[in-house]
Amino acid sequence: MTEKAKVGRNVVIEEGVVLGNHVVIGDNTVILSGTELGDEVEVGANCVLGIQPGGNKRMRKTGEGTRKLVIGKGTKLGSLVSVYAGTKLGDHVFVGDHASIREAVTVGAGTVIGRSAIVELNTTIGANCTIQTSAYVTGDTIIEDNVFIGPCVSMSNDKYMGAKAYEMKGPHIESGAKIGNNATLLPGVRVGAGTIVGAGAVVTKDTGNHVVVAGVPARLLKEEGK
Amino acid sequence: MTEKAKVGRNVVIEEGVVLGNHVVIGDNTVILSGTELGDEVEVGANCVLGIQPGGNKRMRKTGEGTRKLVIGKGTKLGSLVSVYAGTKLGDHVFVGDHASIREAVTVGAGTVIGRSAIVELNTTIGANCTIQTSAYVTGDTIIEDNVFIGPCVSMSNDKYMGAKAYEMKGPHIESGAKIGNNATLLPGVRVGAGTIVGAGAVVTKDTGNHVVVAGVPARLLKEEGK
Amino acid sequence: MTEKAKVGRNVVIEEGVVLGNHVVIGDNTVILSGTELGDEVEVGANCVLGIQPGGNKRMRKTGEGTRKLVIGKGTKLGSLVSVYAGTKLGDHVFVGDHASIREAVTVGAGTVIGRSAIVELNTTIGANCTIQTSAYVTGDTIIEDNVFIGPCVSMSNDKYMGAKAYEMKGPHIESGAKIGNNATLLPGVRVGAGTIVGAGAVVTKDTGNHVVVAGVPARLLKEEGK
Repeated sequence: MTEKAKVGRNVVIEEGVVLGNHVVIGDNTVILSGTELGDEVEVGANCVLGIQPGGNKRMRKTGEGTRKLVIGKGTKLGSLVSVYAGTKLGDHVFVGDHASIREAVTVGAGTVIGRSAIVELNTTIGANCTIQTSAYVTGDTIIEDNVFIGPCVSMSNDKYMGAKAYEMKGPHIESGAKIGNNATLLPGVRVGAGTIVGAGAVVTKDTGNHVVVAGVPARLLKEEGK
Repeated sequence: MTEKAKVGRNVVIEEGVVLGNHVVIGDNTVILSGTELGDEVEVGANCVLGIQPGGNKRMRKTGEGTRKLVIGKGTKLGSLVSVYAGTKLGDHVFVGDHASIREAVTVGAGTVIGRSAIVELNTTIGANCTIQTSAYVTGDTIIEDNVFIGPCVSMSNDKYMGAKAYEMKGPHIESGAKIGNNATLLPGVRVGAGTIVGAGAVVTKDTGNHVVVAGVPARLLKEEGK
Repeated sequence: MTEKAKVGRNVVIEEGVVLGNHVVIGDNTVILSGTELGDEVEVGANCVLGIQPGGNKRMRKTGEGTRKLVIGKGTKLGSLVSVYAGTKLGDHVFVGDHASIREAVTVGAGTVIGRSAIVELNTTIGANCTIQTSAYVTGDTIIEDNVFIGPCVSMSNDKYMGAKAYEMKGPHIESGAKIGNNATLLPGVRVGAGTIVGAGAVVTKDTGNHVVVAGVPARLLKEEGK
């Protein structure tokens, strides 16, 4: 452990954890084996970091031996946060209180994962994105750079709703797209670059680039360049 | 306490807790009096189990003296989970991180309660169901066996929205039904056996069996056997 | 510290915390400097109270030096709750498990903030309101007295979705209004006094008083006095 870390009370740091310089760890936080915190990382209170994937027999198998959680320089996590092993958070990321990020996730530099937001497994989130409060980013999703996901947005990756195993595909949200609050994205839909999805819309098929869609199901409100 | 339990650091286990064989309890977890964990139960870090019902004067009275929380054999709970006394989880149930289950709830064997999902009081959930991430199962709800509740599904049990007390009735979701992500179910609606509700739908009245409904308000898309 | 407080195990109470008489604090809870708990306040387990606002460079600046969290007489907080400094909860408020309340928030006496509900910064909530489970109250919002916000209601305060800074305005929900579950409110909309918004509705513009609106987008179903 670095000499300069500031570690709270009742903190559990397992063997094999690597702490950078000037790390701050809040009270009652648990950091499990295999976690690496970069320089100047700050973690709030009552967090659990580096969880190994588990599940029951009806859930997807994800484990392939012990994996690492790597958190980049200057990244800050709130309180009551959970993050799994097998995931990499870039530099200067912010993760709000009560958020949860699963295994095999990559989050680009400068991105904000909001309070109580959930990011499921096998998902890639680009740089400088904003994933707002209580948004749900499903598994097997691709979010490119500079994307805005509004509060309470919901996604799905399972068009057979449990009836067929292992055919999961989440949305693909291209660079600069903006998704309004409480919108619903169906499995595998592509939201084009720079496109705006209205609040409460239900996106059932791919959209163009730089358009505006809204409604249930979502329809084109404004075409590209108009 | 059994000799073979594996108990983390800073764990609080109150008097009167019963632990089965080969139980695993994560760091900083609190297990309150009246909780019974079956053999091979695993609990993550920073959980609170066996909470006694409380509330303020504007909330429904639910207490009737001290009650037990009973957790069946081989059931696994994630981290940062809360479960109340007066509830029974069957064998081989899985409860994701940040989930919360209130009092007077029964969950059948093999069911998955997803990450950050909420189950309110006086609710029965059958066996081999999947309650996906961040789904909200309201109070006074019946969910039969083999039901799939998609992510972020919302339910209500109070058609007077606080204007009349004690007339609560949640949805009744019959065997094998599947509810798409972010769908909304109104108080007391019945979703028929094997029926599929589209993502983002708002279900305002009972559906048939083995049909497909979608839209706002939800309308019949596909009839039984067609 | 008062002599009569009942404090759990592994509790962290920082210097400068003020505890009223007959306060109860659950196990593993963290109470940070600047927090003042009134008489008979009860706090569950694994909470974090008095968090100082932070964020990264892409987030709104909210800090203006150390601020206080003041919690009124007889108020009860569940377990796994987070509340920020700079906020004031009135007397006999109830805050459910997993809920989160940010800085510069005022909550009136007797109000219920439900399980897993989120209240963002710069928001005012009146007396005797019910904010149901998993509801999302965005920043810069005004909720008057006796309002009912159903489960999973979503709000937004940013009509430019991150494209322009510092022009945030949340909804204004007038006295006695009732919002159905999973409804979506757009930035700056006014919901009139006594008005009912249907479950799953998307409110895109101001409503009258004492009317009923529903649908996507929300339309008038019932006029005042009819």
